[in-house]
This record gives sequence, structure tokens and C-alpha cells, in this order.
Amino acid sequence: MKKVAIVGASGYSGEELVRLLLSHPHAELAAVTSRQYAGQSLAQIFPKFAHHPRAKDLCFSEPRAELLAKQAQIVFLALPHGVAAEFAVPLLQLGCQVIDLSADFRVRSAAVYKDFYAHDHPAPELLAQAVYGLPEVYRAQIKPASLIASPGCYPTSILLPTIPLLKAGLIKPEGIIADSLSGVSGAGRKAELDYLFVECNESVRPYGLPKHRHLSEIEQELSLAADLQVTIQFTPHLIPVNRGILTTLYLTPAGGSDGLGEKIATCYRAAYSNEPFVRLLEGKALPDTKNVVGTNVIEIAWRLDLRTGRLIVMSAEDNLVKGAGGQAVQSMNILCGFPETAGLL
Amino acid sequence: MKKVAIVGASGYSGEELVRLLLSHPHAELAAVTSRQYAGQSLAQIFPKFAHHPRAKDLCFSEPRAELLAKQAQIVFLALPHGVAAEFAVPLLQLGCQVIDLSADFRVRSAAVYKDFYAHDHPAPELLAQAVYGLPEVYRAQIKPASLIASPGCYPTSILLPTIPLLKAGLIKPEGIIADSLSGVSGAGRKAELDYLFVECNESVRPYGLPKHRHLSEIEQELSLAADLQVTIQFTPHLIPVNRGILTTLYLTPAGGSDGLGEKIATCYRAAYSNEPFVRLLEGKALPDTKNVVGTNVIEIAWRLDLRTGRLIVMSAEDNLVKGAGGQAVQSMNILCGFPETAGLL
Amino acid sequence: MKKVAIVGASGYSGEELVRLLLSHPHAELAAVTSRQYAGQSLAQIFPKFAHHPRAKDLCFSEPRAELLAKQAQIVFLALPHGVAAEFAVPLLQLGCQVIDLSADFRVRSAAVYKDFYAHDHPAPELLAQAVYGLPEVYRAQIKPASLIASPGCYPTSILLPTIPLLKAGLIKPEGIIADSLSGVSGAGRKAELDYLFVECNESVRPYGLPKHRHLSEIEQELSLAADLQVTIQFTPHLIPVNRGILTTLYLTPAGGSDGLGEKIATCYRAAYSNEPFVRLLEGKALPDTKNVVGTNVIEIAWRLDLRTGRLIVMSAEDNLVKGAGGQAVQSMNILCGFPETAGLL
Amino acid sequence: MKKVAIVGASGYSGEELVRLLLSHPHAELAAVTSRQYAGQSLAQIFPKFAHHPRAKDLCFSEPRAELLAKQAQIVFLALPHGVAAEFAVPLLQLGCQVIDLSADFRVRSAAVYKDFYAHDHPAPELLAQAVYGLPEVYRAQIKPASLIASPGCYPTSILLPTIPLLKAGLIKPEGIIADSLSGVSGAGRKAELDYLFVECNESVRPYGLPKHRHLSEIEQELSLAADLQVTIQFTPHLIPVNRGILTTLYLTPAGGSDGLGEKIATCYRAAYSNEPFVRLLEGKALPDTKNVVGTNVIEIAWRLDLRTGRLIVMSAEDNLVKGAGGQAVQSMNILCGFPETAGLL
Repeated sequence: MKKVAIVGASGYSGEELVRLLLSHPHAELAAVTSRQYAGQSLAQIFPKFAHHPRAKDLCFSEPRAELLAKQAQIVFLALPHGVAAEFAVPLLQLGCQVIDLSADFRVRSAAVYKDFYAHDHPAPELLAQAVYGLPEVYRAQIKPASLIASPGCYPTSILLPTIPLLKAGLIKPEGIIADSLSGVSGAGRKAELDYLFVECNESVRPYGLPKHRHLSEIEQELSLAADLQVTIQFTPHLIPVNRGILTTLYLTPAGGSDGLGEKIATCYRAAYSNEPFVRLLEGKALPDTKNVVGTNVIEIAWRLDLRTGRLIVMSAEDNLVKGAGGQAVQSMNILCGFPETAGLL
Repeated sequence: MKKVAIVGASGYSGEELVRLLLSHPHAELAAVTSRQYAGQSLAQIFPKFAHHPRAKDLCFSEPRAELLAKQAQIVFLALPHGVAAEFAVPLLQLGCQVIDLSADFRVRSAAVYKDFYAHDHPAPELLAQAVYGLPEVYRAQIKPASLIASPGCYPTSILLPTIPLLKAGLIKPEGIIADSLSGVSGAGRKAELDYLFVECNESVRPYGLPKHRHLSEIEQELSLAADLQVTIQFTPHLIPVNRGILTTLYLTPAGGSDGLGEKIATCYRAAYSNEPFVRLLEGKALPDTKNVVGTNVIEIAWRLDLRTGRLIVMSAEDNLVKGAGGQAVQSMNILCGFPETAGLL
Repeated sequence: MKKVAIVGASGYSGEELVRLLLSHPHAELAAVTSRQYAGQSLAQIFPKFAHHPRAKDLCFSEPRAELLAKQAQIVFLALPHGVAAEFAVPLLQLGCQVIDLSADFRVRSAAVYKDFYAHDHPAPELLAQAVYGLPEVYRAQIKPASLIASPGCYPTSILLPTIPLLKAGLIKPEGIIADSLSGVSGAGRKAELDYLFVECNESVRPYGLPKHRHLSEIEQELSLAADLQVTIQFTPHLIPVNRGILTTLYLTPAGGSDGLGEKIATCYRAAYSNEPFVRLLEGKALPDTKNVVGTNVIEIAWRLDLRTGRLIVMSAEDNLVKGAGGQAVQSMNILCGFPETAGLL
Repeated sequence: MKKVAIVGASGYSGEELVRLLLSHPHAELAAVTSRQYAGQSLAQIFPKFAHHPRAKDLCFSEPRAELLAKQAQIVFLALPHGVAAEFAVPLLQLGCQVIDLSADFRVRSAAVYKDFYAHDHPAPELLAQAVYGLPEVYRAQIKPASLIASPGCYPTSILLPTIPLLKAGLIKPEGIIADSLSGVSGAGRKAELDYLFVECNESVRPYGLPKHRHLSEIEQELSLAADLQVTIQFTPHLIPVNRGILTTLYLTPAGGSDGLGEKIATCYRAAYSNEPFVRLLEGKALPDTKNVVGTNVIEIAWRLDLRTGRLIVMSAEDNLVKGAGGQAVQSMNILCGFPETAGLL
């Protein structure tokens, strides 16, 4: 049993980590922190976990790196960007392994970080050692890492369907468009008018375009896959569901159309048929968030449009699981040498 | 055309008043106030009204009684209790007619007010002149009134189905139970975690029991109808819809069961068959909030349970229309001698 | 007062026509037909209209062209494609003006119709006289028409934002992508498992790609605007709201970027600033279906992405109003010489 | 590992059983039947289970008792009432243990069954041997049973909060009122207009009153607890959530009010503090379906109303888990001597 802690356990990502780690067969949830709820038990703040034996005893504490480093070997940070780095620095110095769910260590360049997040990077010296925690792409690098930057929810839904095609040269790196729909939990547990039930229910709206912050990590990873600088179009929308992201990608095939369908199918099978959390849909099936919510699975389907010559790829994931807490636990499993699906099936 | 103003026009009740008054054939919306949005136009804050010619010109202003009294003859107060009375006092002195949607003038006793609202009544001297703005019961008193206390949303859904039966002696005044379900707009436009989309969607929960504030006006009016002190059981629940209240009433018939069904039917028809906003359902029909949302109609159906001897009465209304803004406009129509349905059909 | 009838009044589009025509100042709803509900009153089938004086008297009848032609001068067809044409033929012969909400007369070519709808066109001889009922584009042609093909919901949301830009040569006719999100009422009132509450709630999914039927009319109208054959990419998605379509368009500017923003703004203002039902959003505002639901308004906003060079245009409409019944009534107003906004504000 | 089968696995209760049994540590899902989907795999019909190793191999079969008896020792029936008994008879003869989720064996009297279900009981000879599968009440009887009648969703939400109070004589058996709110999955996966998304979303409505079928088992069990014939008032309502039942009970304390609160608290603690699936809420907490959805837990809270003298008890459960599939698996665990929480935490 590994001892683990969650810093910032009262937001939606933190809560999902609590759910997953309470029932993880090889992890013991040793500490959860929350400035707001310090002193109160898990059972009081999250009644849904109250039937778990740990929930009555485990109380939220004030986040203090020294104490956390004594309580846990692995620390998950579910904090706002900027704040996460402040905890990562001392925790790493004290010998913890850190899995950060914020954006702080996802981009390799402090300049890009500043461009997208509008402040200087709080710990640029750590950027070189951070590993982007997308197991299907960086499994080998995650294994020995001490600092894992768990990917954003939108990036996961865009990168997993796109990277194999780019690496195989099956699509052009230019002109990629990602149109994404996210449930409201993606906005976090924030008391703002925009996210009130009445403002979101019976409503659909785009937001944050044309330069959403997640573009920084999306374009970094696509550029690495394509081996040249990639710039994409990304439009997020808010839809009235609690959880789930549905992304529709508009891609341009590279090369001729001869046997293209078979090549794409082969490419995806080579990349994902052994991946426990990537479900390649077959036949007429199309992704549906209701089939992945609550799981760490991402569904992917694609269609070639003979009329336009374009390739349409669609993905569905749970923004709080494969898009946040579940993927972070998947990285932990790799890091610790547990079966990769432990606590995630 | 009567000139009208709305104080506190940025909440959900205020917004509904804006909608109704912008399209009212005999009213001109002369002023809307909001501390938060002062200086911005209706079109900016409520894009949904932007196609209305007045929406671009009419700007929110700081609420000042002297100015309002110059701009409008009738002033609607859509403010929190306690604050409403502070505006009612000077507006009445300056000669305005006031239609207050808060709880400040609904109960006739300052002591009862204090018991339920936990502070001294801010203007007890006005209580005697206030008229409870339930047109189906107090039409004659509303006509000459200068201060109308528009009823609460829950009270409307409980009083209209109950008062005729109590007055006719068809039910016992003891043991009345009202179980109510309300959409989330009933909580107001407040940036609180409890009313976030993710906290309300896929959730149902009771709250505010056993002594909800609305009991003060409900019991006052039922007591007047029964001519003795009535105490009832009332349990509100929050359900994931934007608008609508569904109330189920558990009542005990008085007297024998001979011809009881016919007596109840006759009683309701006598009370409501000429009322433009009360819909008595027939046959197998049962109330459904989706059939009243956006309208000033309250639906009522009832069933006698031969197994238990009880009378079950159910009502459905839009909490923001018949339960707030619509009923207030209905009172305005009576006050001004307009057709009672003007602007409400 | 014009006498009007609705054939197929029990579906969602038919129901919306009933709502609009019951309260229209210059129309008298003389007949509503429904095979399923023949003999039952409007009030019985649609309790929400029961407070309207006509709702108790007006009963659904079996659809018969001869009778309808005696009862009404204008007949709305809210029927499935294929069936609508069967009614249009005799009604036109009997002298009625027909406003068809189905797809039967939207495409000018019987061959295209067969390609997309998989059966021969039932009345190809009428195609030449049908006018595509998009008032902002075809107002002059609607005025003298006898047969109006009211546009589909998706096409309206795509055509109104795109046509002015194409006509002005501001965007390239190649590579247009329309990504649309529709509420569930777009699927019609059909008892199918896919549209059950539990299957749609907490779900988002693409469907009907890559060759949705609406492409036939969309590409026809875009081709007319561009004066060359246009082929577009269109991906519809189903989202858990009752009403509303949100469309995001990915467009490529033609010509240089010098002053492009100003040209686009000027183009849209020229096209729409006097249109009562097109709302051009300004500043930071973005379309939101909740601001148009229940109205005949379409909201449009756009952003130039300096990083990608693309133009993103977004629109929001109520699929049952501007996307169906409201637009049909707008055409009726033009046809009859009523104010174009009559019954629609 | 016990081999288990599910007959009627394509409805919502069947699907929930599939979910629970696929991941059960001591059960092997050997067969699933569905007339409609025979020949198709679990993965095809329920994509959400497709990542499970069994889902690709296991195909739906036609339901045949002889075959099922060879494949499984325990057979779950998730069939409509009337049909379930037709399978129970041969399965029991062939030596299977049967856990029936229908109403067929819940009431002990064939006459009561006929009164509520409007047809003769299909296998009255089995009624005497059936055990009502409410583990918190009938654990000892479930252990040796061969035929378990798993309780209905509403009954579970009413019986668990009420039975301990009745047995302890703390409430009167007369005048009990149960007001219940259910998510739409309670209506089953039926292609009916009433349960379409558009008809349920933004809607709340009572139905099935005053004599809902579940009253037969509720009153039977309350009568057994009170040791006299109990008749209750029960009003179900449909609310727009996928899952969850919230029940509010209006009860009359028996005996004086001295120390009543303490007696109730003691009674509930005695009954449930060791029950793994009953959560007694403390302090200000009230039940909320979102805290139990997806779990086998029922939450219970209560309030004494000093004004009315009544006791209000509220419960929340997932209608498909504690109200159906989860409770059935709990019974299986008892039957087989597995830990009672196996596969349910």
C-alpha cells in the first residue's frame, strides 16, 4: 500500500480523486487538504463517501508541505495553476513524487506558459523534469518520473485521437479544427453566476475562443507528434451535463485516398487495441458521453467524408476521470508499478 | 399608458417583471434599477430582451426613491425582505402605488414577521394598509390599494387550491400537509455553491423544514379562510428544473362522504370557473409544470382516495409568473382598471 | 383576419404553430388536423393552451384537403417529408396558399431530393413554383408566392450567418465547416428509445454524419449565394436541452487581412441591422440558446482568429421558432401583407 | 465463483445487474437473455461495458429455462410482472435459486396480487416459499431461500425508514403518508411518448394516484411490522433526473413527546448503525439523491415538528441500485454466504 495525499481535495477534480483513491487496492489515502474545510471529515463534506470506513476518520487539513511529506509518498495537486507550483517545489525537495493536475508543468516553455496564463512561471527550473502524464503516449517516461503534469481535460480528448494519425503521416498538420463540448463540472466548483443551474440548464454556449489556455499544451504535444510547429483551431462550448467532453475533430488526410480508410483503421488499432482505456468504436457506433461517464475510458470513432475529402474524428471522455483524476491515478499506477488498471475498472 | 418602474430588476423575479412589462399593452417601463448594473442597458444585461425597442435605451439606474417617484406612478419592488420596506416608505409618501414582491408586507402582524424573519419589521405602521395581492381572493381590496404585498410562490400554490375548500367547510382545518417541489430559480440569482448546475442537476432534496418562512403568510391566509387558527405542515424540495412549483396537498374531508366528490367539484367551479388564470383539470389529467411554465396559469386537480378517506389536491404554477411577476402584474391590472389579463395571455 | 389551418398539428413544430397562431393578431386558427387525435380538442391534447378561448372548441380533425380548403386560406403543413407533398398538390389546386415546413419543396432539383431523401420526389412539377421561405434572403419572392418551403432548423442557423459573407466575397466558398448542436425536440415527437429522457439526459452525441439530409438545401442556398457549387462539412450533435440550436462555423477569409474585421462588421450590419429577427452581438457577447428560446430571433457573433487566420461565426436560434414555426409565420406575415413581426414579438 | 444469469437484461434494472455482476468478485455472469437483442454481444448493446473482458464474448440469448439452468446456479429475473413467474416455475424445478426483481412474488396473497395487478397470479403455489428480499428486515429468511422477491424501488424507500418506528411503537400505524419523487428510469426502457426527453425535462408531475401497485407490498410489510392492517397514502411524482428516489414521510408519533427525539434516534441507531447500506444523517444534513446515485446506500434523516407534532422522515436511494439491482445482489450475497457488501462498495 502506497500512502497518498490530495492537496485541494474539495474541488470537483479533488473529489473525483478522493473517490478513486478511497477504493484503490494499492493506495491508502493518508491526507486530504482544504483551507475551507480544514477540521471537517470527508464524510461531512462529501456525504456520498460517508459509507466508506475511512471517511469518518479522515479530516481535511490545512495544506502544509512538511506534514504532507511525512504522511504520503505520492501527493496529488488539485489546485489552481500558479498555486500548484508553490506546493510542488517543497514536496519534491522533501522527496515526494508529485502528480499535478493543474496546468503548471504541462508546457515545457516558461515563455509559452506566460503567453497563455498571463503571469511568470512560478518554478521554471522544474519544467525540464516534468513528464506530461498521458500514459498512452508517455508511459515509459512516466515510470521513472518524480513530477507528472497530468493533462487537461480538453487536451486529452484532442490528443489521443490525433497523435497516432500525425505520427503516421496520415493527416496534414495544418488546418486542424477541434470543436469541443464540455459538461459544467469543467468550470470547477466556483460560486459564480455563470455556472448557476438556471444559467446553464436549457443553455448551450461557446466560450473562451479563439485562444483558450489549453491550446498551449495541445499545440505543444501535436507539434512533437508532427515534428513541426502545429497551430490548431479550438472552440470549447458549455453544455448542460454534469460530466463529459465530446470533441469533434476536422482533419485533412495527407496523401491519396487509396486505401485511406484501411490505413486509418490500422493506425488506430496499432496505437490503441491493447490500451485498456481507449475504446475504438466499430460499425455504426458513435461516441456518447453517457457511455464513458464515471469511467477512465475514452471512446473514439471516425468517418471519412467522400464528398469533402475530410476525416472526421470524434471522441468522448469523462472530463473528471480520463480528463483529470482517473488519468492521474493511471499515471500513479505506472509510477508505482501497479497494474495500470488498478482501481480504475 | 401607465409609467412603471422596477426596483431590483436584475434578479429572476425582476427579470420576469421586465419581460412582462416590456410587452404590456398599457404600461410603459420607465425605469429599472440595479446597484450592480447601474449604467448598463437592459440589452446588455438581458440579451434575451435586446430585440425589444426599449431595451437599448433603457439603462439600469441606482435606486433612488425621489427620482423613481418622478419617473413612475407604479413601482414594483423585487428586493430582499427588509430592504423592500425601506423603499416602500418613501415611495408611498411621494404618492406612488407600490407592488412589493418581497415578504415585507404579507403578514399583518409585526410579531409574526419577527418570529419568521428574525428581525424587527422595518415599517410596521404600513402593515395595516397593505393588501395581500392574491387577486382570486382579494380582488376588491386590491382595486383601491396603494400598497400591495404580492404573495410568495409557495403560498400561491397552496392557498388557491385550499381556500375555497376551507371557506366551504369541506375540509378540516387541522392536519393539512403541503408537500412542494420547486425549480431552482426559486432560490434567486445568488452566487452560492448550493445552486451551481452540478450541485442541482441529477439531485433532489428537501430543505428549510420544518419551519419555512412562507408558513407565516400561508397560515395567516388559511386562518382567515377557516376563521380559526390554522397550523400546517409544509415541506419544500428543490428539483432540477429552472421554473415551476408542483404542490401536493393532503387534506381531510369534513363531514360525511356522501356526495363529497360532487360538492368539491361544485366548490371549485364556483370559485374558479370564471377565473382567467385558474385551470381546473378534468378527467384523468393531472398538473404538470411544463403546461404552465411561462404563463400566469395555475393548474389544479384533485382525487378522493376511497381507501384512506383523504382528499389529495395538486397544483402546478410557474414560480416566477403566477408565483411572482405575473401575479404582481395581475394586481397592477386590477389597480389600474385594465383588463385583468392584459399583458398576461 | 386570415383563416389558417395546420395539417399535422400534434408534433413539436405543429404545436409551436398552434401557440403562435392562437395569439396572432391577424390570423384565426380555423382547423388543426391529426389522425391520432381526431375528435379531441386542443385543450385536451395540449393542456398548456387550454386557457385560450379557442382551445376548448377547436378539435383535431382528420386531414382532408377539400374540407381544409373550405376552412382556411392559408394551410401550414407540419408533416413528414413525402407526406407533405401529397397534401400540397390538392390544396394548391383548390386555391389555398401553402406553407410547408417539411423538406419536400426546399430543393429545386428532384434528383438532389432523391439523392438525399432516398425516394422519388412526389410532386416534381411543383418545385419550380416553390419559394424557399427564408425572409431575410427571399422576402420579395415570398410576397407573391403560393407555395412556400419553410427552411429546416439547421439550415437556418447556417445560412443566415454565411450568405452575406459569401455574397460579399469575404469568405472562400471552399472548406466551410458547420458544427451544430441541437435540442432533442429537433428529433420530433417520436416514441423511440433513442429519445427517451434517460437516453438523452447526461449525454451528448454526434449523429447523422457525414451526409445529413439538410445538406441538400444548405448547399443549394450557399451555391446560389456564391454563384458556384459549394460543398460543406456538417456535423450535427444531440444535446440535452428541449429547444435550441447552436452552430459554430469555421470559415476561411478571402483576400487579405487588411481591414477584414471592419469589412465583416460592415457586411453584417448592411445585411441585418434592419432585420427584426437577427441580433448581431457586440463586444464580448457570444450566442447562447437560452437568450433566443421561445423567440423568433437568431443571434450571430463572430471572431477573427489571428493565430489561424480563420473566421469563426456562431449562431443561436430556437429550432422550433426561427428554425420552424416562427419562420413559417414570418413568411405568412409577408405573404399576407401583415407587419412582419405580427404575432412574433 | 457462482455462475449467475440475468433474464431480461436489456431494461434499466437488467443493465444495472449487468454492471454489478460483471465486476462482482464472487460471481461469474454466465448468461444474459433478451428476445430483442439475441445474438448480439453485451459490448454492442451496452457500449459502456465494452471495456470489460466478458463484454465482447458474452452474447444475449433467447430466454430458455432448460439452458439457463445448465449455465447458472442463480438466475435473476428482470422481467415484467406476470412474465417473471413463467420463468420462475421451471427454473426452481430445475434446481436454480431465483432472485426475481418483478412484483410477482412480493405479496403473499394471490387475491391482493389480483386486486392490484388486475390478473390472476400466474403461480400462486410459489407464494408461500418466496422471501421478500429486504435484507435489513429479512436477512435470516433470505439465507436459506430458493425464491427471493426483490422489493420495489418505492417500497424500499418507504419501508426502511418506517418499519423500525412501527415495530418500536414510536409512530401510529394510522395516517401514514408517503410522498415520493422518482427519476425517469423508474418507468423502464419503454418507447412511450410520456417518457421522451422533451416531455420529462423541465416537467414535474404526479401520477398513478391514489392506488399505485406498489401499495400492495408496502402495506403488507407495514402491516407485518405493526401487527395490524395498515393502509397508507402514497403519491409518486416523476421528476427530471435519470436516477434516484426521494421519499418524504409524514408520520404521527405514538405516546407523549417526552424524550421522543432521543427515542427515535435510539431506535434508528439500533436498527441501522451496523447496516452497511443505511446511512443515518446527522446534524443539519438532509437526504439528497446525488449522494446515493450509483451506490447501494439509502440515506435517512428525520425532523420532529414541534408546531404540528408530526414526525417527518426523508429518505434517498438510487432506484436502480438499492431500489432494484443492488438490493438483489445484496440478497445474492446473503444467499451465497459472500460478504454482504461484496461487489457493492
